[in-house]
Amino acid sequence: MRILLVGATGKLGTAVHEVLVERKHDVVTVSRTGGDLQYDVTDPAQVADLYQTVGQVDAVASAAGHVPFKPFGELTIDDYQAGLTGKVLSQVALVREGLAHVTESFTLITGVLAREPIVTGAAASLVNGAVESFVRAAAIEIAPQRVNAVSPTVFTEALDAYGDYFPGMKPVPLADVAQAYVRSIEGRQTGQVYVL
Amino acid sequence: MRILLVGATGKLGTAVHEVLVERKHDVVTVSRTGGDLQYDVTDPAQVADLYQTVGQVDAVASAAGHVPFKPFGELTIDDYQAGLTGKVLSQVALVREGLAHVTESFTLITGVLAREPIVTGAAASLVNGAVESFVRAAAIEIAPQRVNAVSPTVFTEALDAYGDYFPGMKPVPLADVAQAYVRSIEGRQTGQVYVL
Repeated sequence: MRILLVGATGKLGTAVHEVLVERKHDVVTVSRTGGDLQYDVTDPAQVADLYQTVGQVDAVASAAGHVPFKPFGELTIDDYQAGLTGKVLSQVALVREGLAHVTESFTLITGVLAREPIVTGAAASLVNGAVESFVRAAAIEIAPQRVNAVSPTVFTEALDAYGDYFPGMKPVPLADVAQAYVRSIEGRQTGQVYVL
Repeated sequence: MRILLVGATGKLGTAVHEVLVERKHDVVTVSRTGGDLQYDVTDPAQVADLYQTVGQVDAVASAAGHVPFKPFGELTIDDYQAGLTGKVLSQVALVREGLAHVTESFTLITGVLAREPIVTGAAASLVNGAVESFVRAAAIEIAPQRVNAVSPTVFTEALDAYGDYFPGMKPVPLADVAQAYVRSIEGRQTGQVYVL
């Protein structure tokens, strides 16, 4: 399949890229500053331009999203808005604008904080909850096109940096998270949230 | 208790007001155009002003939130943003700004679409999912203050207008939804989503 991979140069995007190439897909990589194409998908106009440039693809895989982490008392309304712009509206735009360009499926990124809060994670929880409910809702209206979300806990490869925020929570290897993208892209499920 | 009720003049707000008064609470009602005080809580500056005016309260109950409903293909990014401003960031601001003014609890409004999508409801689903995950996250950082969400399905009293959008889904009487506010306000639970 021809797959547009957004957020392709981060830790997760790199792992997803590897497994998609292993599975013989033709992957077009996008990120803000690297990859085959440079676009900032937090700008809806750039999302539209991106699809005009890329043309038809079979699937979109998103591994892109930035949300501020701060203690609750320090998170401002602007911080919540930054998270919504950086991970929710950007991925909504990928689906909305993509309907005319994507044959089969969209796979979005969310995360465990939708269900399991951690200290400093209120904006991230809010954002992830939004993405997961959006995926369930969009799925019933965009069929036969499909949309799923991948919702991992802390990556094993990120434990050094973030492990202290996830006490007693079992990490997940990036390779397993990448397989959830394969499950979404090559399977036929829709409206699912793959919790890892 | 002294309770600030936001969105007090809508269908739900009116039912919540009635039950809180029955239970001998001192209720200060707020809405855009009616109630004891007129404030637009979608403007964070007005939320801060509201708390300055009201002073100390024991609890905040929110029954306020507006989200656009449209077929998926017609929902624009501005529509999603309107829903986020109208039901998510407004309620986040009630909690954030309220921490210095509210002794005991915050009760927010969300809805069944967080879990059960309906056609035309993608923005509402996204918004409700955001509120529910926010409540779980805020709860672990604002203790001993508490925060819960009330998540009703379609109201029995609204079936004439909206029943066709909820085929086969059992409606809930407004009186039951109002009791969930009592449960949140007078009980000691926190981080809960009361699904009705």
